Amino acid sequence: MEKTMEKIVALAKSRGFVYPGSEIYGGLANTWDYGNLGVELKNNVKRAWWKKFIQENPYNVGVDCAILMNPQTWVASGHLGGFSDPLMDCKECHERFRADKIIEDFCAEKGIALEESVDAWSQEKMTAFIEEHQVPCPTCGKHNFTDIRQFNLMFKTFQGVTEDAKNTVYLRPETAQGIFVNFKNVQRTSRKKLPFGIGQIGKSFRNEITPGNFTFRTREFEQMELEFFCKPDTDLEWFNYWKSFCLNWLHELGLKDEEVRYRDHEKEELSFYSKATTDVEFLFPFGWGELWGIADRTDYDLTQHQNVSGQDLTYFDDEEGKKYIPYVIEPSLGADRMVLAFLCSAYDEEVLDAEKNDVRTVLHFHPALAPVKVGVLPLSKKLNEGAEKVYAMLAKEWNCEFDDRGNIGKRYRRQDEIGTPFCVTYDFDSETDGAVTVRDRDTMEQERVKIEDLRAYLAKKMEF
Amino acid sequence: MEKTMEKIVALAKSRGFVYPGSEIYGGLANTWDYGNLGVELKNNVKRAWWKKFIQENPYNVGVDCAILMNPQTWVASGHLGGFSDPLMDCKECHERFRADKIIEDFCAEKGIALEESVDAWSQEKMTAFIEEHQVPCPTCGKHNFTDIRQFNLMFKTFQGVTEDAKNTVYLRPETAQGIFVNFKNVQRTSRKKLPFGIGQIGKSFRNEITPGNFTFRTREFEQMELEFFCKPDTDLEWFNYWKSFCLNWLHELGLKDEEVRYRDHEKEELSFYSKATTDVEFLFPFGWGELWGIADRTDYDLTQHQNVSGQDLTYFDDEEGKKYIPYVIEPSLGADRMVLAFLCSAYDEEVLDAEKNDVRTVLHFHPALAPVKVGVLPLSKKLNEGAEKVYAMLAKEWNCEFDDRGNIGKRYRRQDEIGTPFCVTYDFDSETDGAVTVRDRDTMEQERVKIEDLRAYLAKKMEF
Repeated sequence: MEKTMEKIVALAKSRGFVYPGSEIYGGLANTWDYGNLGVELKNNVKRAWWKKFIQENPYNVGVDCAILMNPQTWVASGHLGGFSDPLMDCKECHERFRADKIIEDFCAEKGIALEESVDAWSQEKMTAFIEEHQVPCPTCGKHNFTDIRQFNLMFKTFQGVTEDAKNTVYLRPETAQGIFVNFKNVQRTSRKKLPFGIGQIGKSFRNEITPGNFTFRTREFEQMELEFFCKPDTDLEWFNYWKSFCLNWLHELGLKDEEVRYRDHEKEELSFYSKATTDVEFLFPFGWGELWGIADRTDYDLTQHQNVSGQDLTYFDDEEGKKYIPYVIEPSLGADRMVLAFLCSAYDEEVLDAEKNDVRTVLHFHPALAPVKVGVLPLSKKLNEGAEKVYAMLAKEWNCEFDDRGNIGKRYRRQDEIGTPFCVTYDFDSETDGAVTVRDRDTMEQERVKIEDLRAYLAKKMEF
Repeated sequence: MEKTMEKIVALAKSRGFVYPGSEIYGGLANTWDYGNLGVELKNNVKRAWWKKFIQENPYNVGVDCAILMNPQTWVASGHLGGFSDPLMDCKECHERFRADKIIEDFCAEKGIALEESVDAWSQEKMTAFIEEHQVPCPTCGKHNFTDIRQFNLMFKTFQGVTEDAKNTVYLRPETAQGIFVNFKNVQRTSRKKLPFGIGQIGKSFRNEITPGNFTFRTREFEQMELEFFCKPDTDLEWFNYWKSFCLNWLHELGLKDEEVRYRDHEKEELSFYSKATTDVEFLFPFGWGELWGIADRTDYDLTQHQNVSGQDLTYFDDEEGKKYIPYVIEPSLGADRMVLAFLCSAYDEEVLDAEKNDVRTVLHFHPALAPVKVGVLPLSKKLNEGAEKVYAMLAKEWNCEFDDRGNIGKRYRRQDEIGTPFCVTYDFDSETDGAVTVRDRDTMEQERVKIEDLRAYLAKKMEF
């Protein structure tokens, strides 16, 4: 079985996970809408993160900050000055390109080995390379480019009546800064002592020139970020703690060893303030892609905000009797690509009977992630009344689906295809023995369970 | 006890419910950040809505659509043409005002009775009134205004490299349109038949000229919207169904009869396409304010999108063997003002002993809404090990707090003030009898409960 993006995108659309955004109007470049199953899957991913990173974790608390922030925030964070892509136009065909991407693609095609990522090159170095190699336009093949100029990736808008500099605000390019500017507020109201973390889930926006790979890279996306504050000399220890914690979380939710890996950043690749950075990558059908960026950001962010705001952002350590700016470990995860990774990992086509060409498509979601937890299936429409009672009881606890259409085998297959871990079949015996058949999605085995025990039986199986 | 906004805003800030946004930079006009308790409260409100409107409701499913949509959406919805405020400037002091507000305030001051809301006036009628009454500038007192012009309330931004009309996109002013453009997609993938509803929770943005009243009216806000599709002649029946459903939901979550009311819109006040609209209002300390707008929108929205997109948005009714555009009932609720209403309703100052001037501040949240469900309090730090085990067990299920600082009475009061419904005290007897004391926030009564029964005991009390 070949697992391709085409198959996954098609299933996502046909079963209600992800539709193209504004589809009736021909879409809007690389926006996506989560459908009736997709919203449940995404919410479950967010809840699973919140449960393990915030709710159960004794160190951490959450926040939910505004998307629109005072623009000084982006002065301090460096986004106003330095968060940009190097762009140039072809003077012949008027297409626009990222200079670094053109160089990378050119080198890949010509087999030119590069010592370092083009990301890290200066604008001058890129210009010189393009001239020296007479790099052609990928669209028209000519070599006649404008100068490279820096294009800021923040979405700009205007708050208030006039569209001028005074009223310019930005859509946040990351949720992290809302945490940093509230560091003192949260420390005060939560009464936390170091080490402690502040997590946030929310939308961010980046005006990417080349979004792509379905929901992997989009201009509007959701992040699940944790900023973990610790004493200056304990940062590498906590960096390793969160590296393991993140990988464990993925494994607990069913990702396999061969699907995930760490990629430690080389020294040259690190931001100047970072002591260490590791990506956690997932093997998508289109190749390895970053899920988490885990970075030791030292005291860079809080120091920047202290300098720009003039506010005291130090922490008073009452054990050591002194004030200092805490160090920060940041595990930053994209919710949309996390959802996509779980979808890709779960996807399977199982040959049940090769001779009859009987193949079932199944999504092996962890029960905590499955959009529908239980399918409730009356064997006959005559049994709907009893089955509806079972449905109502289970729906108090979980998102369930009631399905009385078609033969039972087809209904099982339909639930398999959307990743429902359990089907409860209400049959004619149920009316007298007060029991139902529970079918397991993965083993396809069936078990008879008393209706009065059903909730506890299923809860046990869904623990996370 | 007088319940004032000042007290509630102060508590919200000091206890970590709501901070001013970007506070270290002097804020950003009327943006707010939810703190470590506020994020839990808001998430609980959103979950309570999703549970009753989507998960348990057999008619409804959810979606989660992009904030950035194809601009044709706003042509069809009428937001590009008509979603605007009438503004004018004072030529003397250069302040800017909403013409309708100036007239309303002027009439209120002078005791002039108006037959209809100024909202409904034409621009010409407003101009004529201001001239006829020589309405003065509220700031400088002079009468020398510019003409009135219409200011669109949608936030505008640019997707892609150039800031031109071709790349202009808008931040959605409501979540509803994401549902309408996906009507066919969701109907197909969910296999729902009429009547059925599609719900969505998400951020919307309106460039209001006069936001205010804390988090009641903000430019960036979150909505919980349901679009319920039904057969054309059944709309008023379903309108009444959802009116009751919404009010019940508020009552179930603890709002009192005298705090909520319906306000039916008069015929003149209705949008031209609406057959009926009712607001559900809450009595805030600053007066009655809208929580829900419940509207019978007929087939207006789908018809508009069908006309503008050229796509067939009809529904095939297989019982009646014909196609038609469904009617829509829309119960639309603001999440932020809902959170504020629960906060205001829950707030109380109870005189426990008048002579000693012993007053406790307490938030009487419904357990489903309380940001912290259980406070786990070891009677002495010597008991932390055992108490931490109880905390870890309960934290698997709920957001809990561990507090070992200060005397037990003060710890109870602290939990009362943040609305924690249950405190579990682990004392010296716990080590031998395997039981703890559970204190109820509202009655302040205490009960001894076996640790092995604790989870089930508390779950029962928190049912929603």
